[in-house]
Amino acid sequence: MTKTAAIVGGGVIGGGWAARFLLNGWNVQVFDPDPEAERKIGEVLANARRSLPGLSDAPLPEEGKLSFHDDMGAALKGAVWIQESVPEVLELKHKIFAQIQSHCDKGAVIGSSTSGFKPSELQQGADAPGQIIVTHPFNPVYLLPLIEVVTTEENDADFIEAAKAELTGLGLYPLHLKKEIDAHIADRFLEAVWREALWLLKDGIATTEEIDNAIRYGFGIRWAQMGLFETYRVAGGEAGMKHFMAQFGPCLKFPWTKLMDVPEFNDELVDLIAGQSDEQSGAYSIRELERIRDNNLVAMMRALKAQDWGAGALLKSHDTLLKGGTPLGTPLEAMGDLSQPIVTLSRAVPLDWTDYNGHMTESRYLDAFAQSTDRFMDLIGANNEYIEGGMSYFTAETHIRHLDEVRAGERIEVRTQMLLGKGKKLHLFHSMYAGDKLLATGESFLLHVSLETRRPCEPSEAVSAAMAKIAEAQAGLPYPEGAGSAIRAPK
Amino acid sequence: MTKTAAIVGGGVIGGGWAARFLLNGWNVQVFDPDPEAERKIGEVLANARRSLPGLSDAPLPEEGKLSFHDDMGAALKGAVWIQESVPEVLELKHKIFAQIQSHCDKGAVIGSSTSGFKPSELQQGADAPGQIIVTHPFNPVYLLPLIEVVTTEENDADFIEAAKAELTGLGLYPLHLKKEIDAHIADRFLEAVWREALWLLKDGIATTEEIDNAIRYGFGIRWAQMGLFETYRVAGGEAGMKHFMAQFGPCLKFPWTKLMDVPEFNDELVDLIAGQSDEQSGAYSIRELERIRDNNLVAMMRALKAQDWGAGALLKSHDTLLKGGTPLGTPLEAMGDLSQPIVTLSRAVPLDWTDYNGHMTESRYLDAFAQSTDRFMDLIGANNEYIEGGMSYFTAETHIRHLDEVRAGERIEVRTQMLLGKGKKLHLFHSMYAGDKLLATGESFLLHVSLETRRPCEPSEAVSAAMAKIAEAQAGLPYPEGAGSAIRAPK
Repeated sequence: MTKTAAIVGGGVIGGGWAARFLLNGWNVQVFDPDPEAERKIGEVLANARRSLPGLSDAPLPEEGKLSFHDDMGAALKGAVWIQESVPEVLELKHKIFAQIQSHCDKGAVIGSSTSGFKPSELQQGADAPGQIIVTHPFNPVYLLPLIEVVTTEENDADFIEAAKAELTGLGLYPLHLKKEIDAHIADRFLEAVWREALWLLKDGIATTEEIDNAIRYGFGIRWAQMGLFETYRVAGGEAGMKHFMAQFGPCLKFPWTKLMDVPEFNDELVDLIAGQSDEQSGAYSIRELERIRDNNLVAMMRALKAQDWGAGALLKSHDTLLKGGTPLGTPLEAMGDLSQPIVTLSRAVPLDWTDYNGHMTESRYLDAFAQSTDRFMDLIGANNEYIEGGMSYFTAETHIRHLDEVRAGERIEVRTQMLLGKGKKLHLFHSMYAGDKLLATGESFLLHVSLETRRPCEPSEAVSAAMAKIAEAQAGLPYPEGAGSAIRAPK
Repeated sequence: MTKTAAIVGGGVIGGGWAARFLLNGWNVQVFDPDPEAERKIGEVLANARRSLPGLSDAPLPEEGKLSFHDDMGAALKGAVWIQESVPEVLELKHKIFAQIQSHCDKGAVIGSSTSGFKPSELQQGADAPGQIIVTHPFNPVYLLPLIEVVTTEENDADFIEAAKAELTGLGLYPLHLKKEIDAHIADRFLEAVWREALWLLKDGIATTEEIDNAIRYGFGIRWAQMGLFETYRVAGGEAGMKHFMAQFGPCLKFPWTKLMDVPEFNDELVDLIAGQSDEQSGAYSIRELERIRDNNLVAMMRALKAQDWGAGALLKSHDTLLKGGTPLGTPLEAMGDLSQPIVTLSRAVPLDWTDYNGHMTESRYLDAFAQSTDRFMDLIGANNEYIEGGMSYFTAETHIRHLDEVRAGERIEVRTQMLLGKGKKLHLFHSMYAGDKLLATGESFLLHVSLETRRPCEPSEAVSAAMAKIAEAQAGLPYPEGAGSAIRAPK
């Protein structure tokens, strides 16, 4: 059954939560007195729709329903998750929690997006403190997986585990702190860096742009894939972490960071930073910068997914979840009717598959067809285990016809007819659709090979039998238009 | 003429510098009394050879010569750049600089890899202080572009500019600090984060792995593409940077970070961290972690290159430099003999183009052929400007034959024969080689289109004339084997 989330407080963070829930199939009910809330959340949602579905290699569930409510009771009706993202003022949060608890389901999770307050502070004076936890996200909430979960002894262990499971189901990574602490983990680092950066600007060491470059051309790109400790472990080399720490430990005594000192936060400093920031980024609107950021994040996270590492490894396991628990999908015996071309790929076109125009780029058609071939191999039992056992299929030839265009975010589907699957030969005809529109065909001829000799050999009996089963089921299909054709060339 | 760099002090950093110079065509002479220096630098170099050449979309210059020397004079002979990477002990560095200056060319740059010392400290007591600057790199030096350049008034402006130009020529980004400061820029941030992380561990808030995840699933991946200020500018939304600062400024008064306090650096803390790090990363050797890291960095940096952003934009402009100053390469009129198939792609297979076996993956053959087609279009004048003017070529059909395999790091070359280039039609036959070995062929049929109507139309006269010139020059070529063929299919 479709689950319902209530979003209390819209804006960039609340809107990001709304998008994350909606695109994962939840209904979302928003409470925000701001008359601009609907427009603001609509803008975040537009960004999410262009980036999140394609980040995944599996189709997301059908989008839930989004509604806006002036009345807290209506907004909370039926909600099993209530996410609070109102401004960082403790009294305001207490007031909102009281309102929420006078209406909500007693079993619902009340998650707070607070970046600073401890859950014990949030729970003060609440009717049911055990319902309130910190679930602190990172912007953009629809793309970044980190959620800091902070709880107290008021929260029941089963309640916490169930809340974490919901977050995981949304493609998030709940990082459960062992103890509560002001500002949790990540924002402590961010504050330390922010403080240091303000000094560097004030002292005229570098501009905002130079500081940003010092981050993104150096440790920033390292930290996208390994964090602080793993990076230093590698830097320490064969001598190991202890050796590294012996080297780096004494530096802590150096007076390098500005530490306790806080630069005076006056108009002069604000103007200096705002001016430099305009010079650095002013050529782009915020909306353009958001899209650039999302393109970059999707491209990098998908690059990490191909490496099965870091945020990419998280995405990969979430894809598996979306595909029903198997990495590639339903097994042959559970496929039902096989008499029609088999759906071997169903996905949204990701942002990193498109050219500067937003159209899917040439080589990604083959990327999609190759994924369809992989899925077909999985179906006939030539799966990862089989490949580890020393046999596989190699593509010998492919013929692609481009018939129509498709854009980032659109759902594509590939349906596959087996033209021949016998002995060492496997001949597939893939047709790619967006809705009813035929976008391209991909005809592939594969040979079954021994991975040791790299030469053709006979497949296993199970693979042969699976191919025979499909051949029999698809025997009635007409020979597809365009198959077996060559590029007509003048000689 | 081939330039020579001297590396004084090997190890991970010196070795990284050696690899960066060597793979960019410099001769490298190493001075390091460590008997293990040759082995250690060899290992760094092996990592660099598998990752750097393919990071680039243009072929790197031929590798320079690497030699090891027991004698400082021999190591410095002919060197125009001397990179010092000895341990962080000021007296030792002074001693080494004195040795260097008694042998080196008076015009050579002496760059120090120091992460902590100011250049004025390094220059103390030197015979020629104006020769010494800070050029602080980031590990892995062969992949990450950031170099912090720090100078004093002793350094001549022309000398500094020339040094920065050399660094840019190596594909690096010299970030020249406006003033010297302890620990430069990036390491001030790193120290602040490191200090904070030690407290989180000591206080039992999270483990090393959880802290790493807090970084890489959240702000770390953001910082790989935008830094601190641009990220916050976006977070501030339409209200802008001033609004953001008004919100975030007061937080500086909160006692969030541990600031001045330094955790006691005792055996207990070291054991805690080393133990957690073993649990987190101990399943991999340091060598494996280095390769995983390099795979990730190459994949993410290439993803950013496709977006023309951040470190990817730097790589792209360095590729242009390698291609002789034009984004795609030499213009048609400067191409010389056109009677043979034209080299339209020459590059190393990058790490992100390969499967788990290290072989180039199926769809990347089409990626390479599509790049060859782009280069061919550029040659006949259907370049970016032409496309912006509203016309282009669309690929209608492609036929790929896979004939042999190729691995990451190998140099591939695509040679292109034009089978037809007349009116709206362009028919190309690409052959991909590794040395003399034919790996694959890609036959593509393209139509010239109006980007407004998305329908075929006649190309410009200049494009038609360029095609006619190539057609005439290639008229004597035999019709290539495999062209015009279809996948033989049973009906």
